[in-house]
Amino acid sequence: MKKMKSKREGLERKFRNDRIRIDTRMNEILPGQDVEPEILHEAMRYSSLDGGKRIRGLLCLWTHHICGNRYQEAALNASSALEFLHAYTLIHDDLPSMDDDDIRRGKSSCHIKYSPAIAILAGDALQALAFETLASIKSVPAEYLLGAIRTMANSGGSRHLVGGQAADIRLEGTEPSAEKVEFIHLNKTAELIAASMEIGAIISEGNTEKSKRLRKAGIMAGLAFQIVDDLLDLEGNQNIVGKQLRKDSARGKITYPSVYGPEKSREKAESLISEASRLVGDNGPAGLIDYIFDLIINRIH
Amino acid sequence: MKKMKSKREGLERKFRNDRIRIDTRMNEILPGQDVEPEILHEAMRYSSLDGGKRIRGLLCLWTHHICGNRYQEAALNASSALEFLHAYTLIHDDLPSMDDDDIRRGKSSCHIKYSPAIAILAGDALQALAFETLASIKSVPAEYLLGAIRTMANSGGSRHLVGGQAADIRLEGTEPSAEKVEFIHLNKTAELIAASMEIGAIISEGNTEKSKRLRKAGIMAGLAFQIVDDLLDLEGNQNIVGKQLRKDSARGKITYPSVYGPEKSREKAESLISEASRLVGDNGPAGLIDYIFDLIINRIH
Repeated sequence: MKKMKSKREGLERKFRNDRIRIDTRMNEILPGQDVEPEILHEAMRYSSLDGGKRIRGLLCLWTHHICGNRYQEAALNASSALEFLHAYTLIHDDLPSMDDDDIRRGKSSCHIKYSPAIAILAGDALQALAFETLASIKSVPAEYLLGAIRTMANSGGSRHLVGGQAADIRLEGTEPSAEKVEFIHLNKTAELIAASMEIGAIISEGNTEKSKRLRKAGIMAGLAFQIVDDLLDLEGNQNIVGKQLRKDSARGKITYPSVYGPEKSREKAESLISEASRLVGDNGPAGLIDYIFDLIINRIH
Repeated sequence: MKKMKSKREGLERKFRNDRIRIDTRMNEILPGQDVEPEILHEAMRYSSLDGGKRIRGLLCLWTHHICGNRYQEAALNASSALEFLHAYTLIHDDLPSMDDDDIRRGKSSCHIKYSPAIAILAGDALQALAFETLASIKSVPAEYLLGAIRTMANSGGSRHLVGGQAADIRLEGTEPSAEKVEFIHLNKTAELIAASMEIGAIISEGNTEKSKRLRKAGIMAGLAFQIVDDLLDLEGNQNIVGKQLRKDSARGKITYPSVYGPEKSREKAESLISEASRLVGDNGPAGLIDYIFDLIINRIH
């Protein structure tokens, strides 16, 4: 019993520490607020630093860890790149012509704090920074880095992340269906979470059977993540979640609960996470990936 | 005399053919209009194919040519990547919250034809596609490709292209000054034109003294390009230019003519192009780069 408790405490400490390491690295990579044009760099920093759960960054870092942890510093940069990419998508998703959300991570959205023009540009620049960060990693074989860049670009492109967001917006107000929600969740959310695990593995050993298996686990965990997100919109506490809630049904969004109801949705999320965990297999003695999967399924924000 | 004429005709033919080769390659790389979500892929194709002058793509391809032309097919893909990146910036620049332009390349802007949401997403996806295209090039040493990706990401990022656009918008209506116009032109326009030449060279031989020199030539040619752009807004024929004109002064944009007047601006553009040509040095027997520089300075659209 004592051993289990101390293992849990160790994981919690590592979780807190590694979140700080990712934030610190992101802070180092981002141009300073005094670099011209100052308002653009301020907006990029405002929307990417502080407040993020860093699920994607941690999945990359910890997947790299369970794959041998050979290029730990490089993995930290890759984690930062994934978080820059994620931050850009949140900024653009919140824009008035998109989801029109005023609150993000418990504070004003980028376009409210600055302006829609600066928010569009800050997002654009964060995407470029994500690729620059990956391409600037030292010591990892160049072939591995190219593989990581291809993975991020593909998952972040029109067939997946951006395509999922386009479908999410275009299908608002239409009849919910299993096929629609699957397309949206898979692409809008699961692909980048899968890419995070895949990139952690690729930086360790290139494109291998293992990196593909971890990618698959990431798809399942990512689907679970989005289902829980839908449930939080339906049932969560806005002060804890840190963004406007009850918007999905008001906007006629296609969500998992809108197709299957909340109970079946929770069951589905749980079975997806179990399957993801099974696919990952050996988590190392610390059970790193299971710790994040546990957070995904039990999160309240 | 006859020889000079036939040389010119040969260049014109090569120019037309290579523009078609770039468009054909872009068409092959872009997901088809039947790939889900169809409207997103239609918008990406609408705004990136047809109508572009392909100055950036041709500068990349032809710089690669004068550097030995070893990886011609690869250079064609890099040219496509640069044109995807350029197309994304045009889509976002035209948005209502940015420059609010309804016409681009002689037809409706992306957000007019589709919607602001789809235009934001099509731009986002074209940026990802630009990086995916570079990272997917075959046969070129991986180190060279990483160098090309770093160059494109840096030139396309917050310190340069996006930063220049942010300054362009933020400084609207303020007192024109040499310092402001220099910052905007250098970053908004010259950097990507410089990157096009640099990447053509990097794909041939990596980061070398020569690639740096060609980059410098691109900066000068890019400044000249933007000065001519400013002059076209002031003096051009809208039907030929294919976008709304006389908008700069109405919006209080900081332009070269607003600081120096049209006559000095034209002189400056000409002296920049001469200097760029001198820096390039050996153009090969065909004078490829000088042909594009000539187009830049004498263009009427």
